Amino acid sequence: MNLTKILAAIAFITSANMALAGSWEALPNKAPEPADNPTTPAKVKLGKILFMDPRLSSTGTVSCNSCHNVMLGGEDNRPVAMGVNGQTGGRSAPTVWNAAFNSVQFWDGRAPSLEAQAAGPVTNPIEMGMKDWDAVVKRLKAIPGYSNLFKKAFVLDGAISKDNATKAIAAYERTLITPGSAYDKYIKGNKKAMTEEQIRGMNKFAEVGCTNCHSGAAFNGPEMPEGTGFFMKFPVHKDKKTEIKYALTRDKGLAEVTGKKTDDNMWKVPTLRNVALTAPYFHNGKVKTLDKAVDLMARLQLGKKLSKKESSDIVAFLNALSGRFPRQTFPTLPGTPGRAF
Amino acid sequence: MNLTKILAAIAFITSANMALAGSWEALPNKAPEPADNPTTPAKVKLGKILFMDPRLSSTGTVSCNSCHNVMLGGEDNRPVAMGVNGQTGGRSAPTVWNAAFNSVQFWDGRAPSLEAQAAGPVTNPIEMGMKDWDAVVKRLKAIPGYSNLFKKAFVLDGAISKDNATKAIAAYERTLITPGSAYDKYIKGNKKAMTEEQIRGMNKFAEVGCTNCHSGAAFNGPEMPEGTGFFMKFPVHKDKKTEIKYALTRDKGLAEVTGKKTDDNMWKVPTLRNVALTAPYFHNGKVKTLDKAVDLMARLQLGKKLSKKESSDIVAFLNALSGRFPRQTFPTLPGTPGRAF
Repeated sequence: MNLTKILAAIAFITSANMALAGSWEALPNKAPEPADNPTTPAKVKLGKILFMDPRLSSTGTVSCNSCHNVMLGGEDNRPVAMGVNGQTGGRSAPTVWNAAFNSVQFWDGRAPSLEAQAAGPVTNPIEMGMKDWDAVVKRLKAIPGYSNLFKKAFVLDGAISKDNATKAIAAYERTLITPGSAYDKYIKGNKKAMTEEQIRGMNKFAEVGCTNCHSGAAFNGPEMPEGTGFFMKFPVHKDKKTEIKYALTRDKGLAEVTGKKTDDNMWKVPTLRNVALTAPYFHNGKVKTLDKAVDLMARLQLGKKLSKKESSDIVAFLNALSGRFPRQTFPTLPGTPGRAF
Repeated sequence: MNLTKILAAIAFITSANMALAGSWEALPNKAPEPADNPTTPAKVKLGKILFMDPRLSSTGTVSCNSCHNVMLGGEDNRPVAMGVNGQTGGRSAPTVWNAAFNSVQFWDGRAPSLEAQAAGPVTNPIEMGMKDWDAVVKRLKAIPGYSNLFKKAFVLDGAISKDNATKAIAAYERTLITPGSAYDKYIKGNKKAMTEEQIRGMNKFAEVGCTNCHSGAAFNGPEMPEGTGFFMKFPVHKDKKTEIKYALTRDKGLAEVTGKKTDDNMWKVPTLRNVALTAPYFHNGKVKTLDKAVDLMARLQLGKKLSKKESSDIVAFLNALSGRFPRQTFPTLPGTPGRAF
């Protein structure tokens, strides 16, 4: 338990108004690591190469980074992602920044870890379109430089395998965290780090109840054991016209995985870190601006109509959650001298 | 005139066998710059950002780097490039590495400069698919961070314009050069930098006549004034069966631009720098391996059948032309806080 969390716990005990006084947490400088996949430099190096390698897709044109662009807000700023051969699905690519602080992955939380998530898009026919992981492994084995990279990353079992590839990608993703936002500086004591508007927005954000779900250092809910998701129904308050306008209930979310009626329209509570950089919004990317997203969240989740000023204050606060991206060098992807991949 | 060139010139005067003795040139550490677009750090910074920005395409998914990948051999290792919505054309993406040493750009040499080249793919409907440059400029103007980047890069006229955008991209591309190959080390005096096989291949390369066209520091022909291309007919020696097998004459090359019968199947002589990393080969990407490409070049351009050993020696030499890629950091692309691009 780090100091920030201890302070938050003390605040929780001593304060009557947790949301306003004590529950603000800075983003840790390090992401949690699972016991069976410690983050090492060699693994991060390999993971970055794999993350950037378009040869992990059937056409050789789509890498993990294509939809989760670390040069942007960790995604593609498109309503829904575009995979191989220009195909699109129904959901918006979530940001990879700080995904390490999600206890489950994907909008419907179906992956219990970053490792499990990394395996998915590669063989999804409308995303990276590889036939199966055997085909991926075969391709990686045919690229001479990968052999040594896997050996260095996995000292005991240096095989080129699905397990090791997804572990390396997950290890790299655990380095993709963005502390140092105006908000982080502010709650660490630099009272000039946020504007008055942002401070008002921060208090309003807690007061109206956004923190009911968007709590914690990553604003994605309470700390849960890895693999256990924090879900919320969306929308909570019925509004047929809005639902139709933005097609909010067409995709059943968690129920599409479990088949349970009680999981209808249940979604993983997403992080709000860097949310200003990840328009358009919601699981289907149908909402174009953060202003509108805040307005809709208040109405549909909290049953509240925000004033223009309340809404713009909260938007200003959300802009204070844009963090500092880590400095990264371009990897050189191993080649296939004299022949194509 | 740098020392290497002076030495080459002396060798030319004193040696009876220029190709074997004196015409080997190391790649300069700096690319030539046009008088009206000097390379400056601010321009290179902006150019890199533009080069990496997928929002320069209609779908927001294809950047210059998608097909000219600086994490690979400066291209995509595909037979022909794939643009927006999975569209493909008839030609293979040329490498961006050392493109600064080409006096003209594109396979058919239709662009007289890197600046002119950079304007093309952005509005090509099957490449990046933007309607026109007005639309590109409009989109860039709507991304707040670009304004300052253009102002810093172009002190006198800091406008966001096609002219400035393409100048910045070209300035960045002039930094994408790869000295330090085994070959460069060898001809600078490190006699252990190349293997015996590679040295044999180097001499064979000159002896059979590859250097007739692939001469100079970039192995793309004699030094020409910027904007003046060095073209060669391909194939020179008729071989109907091979032509059909690889569809070599279907695309008329320079004649597709000029409409002149005399330009039929004339092509810009491409650089051989990093050629081992840019399979598959030729303008249409129909030849899968470097072995086959060398064999075909000898037969179709020089009318010679190489022995297996001669061919493998030359391939070994061509592998010695893979250079050292410059260390680069990922740029952070300017965002559009609160809304999509």
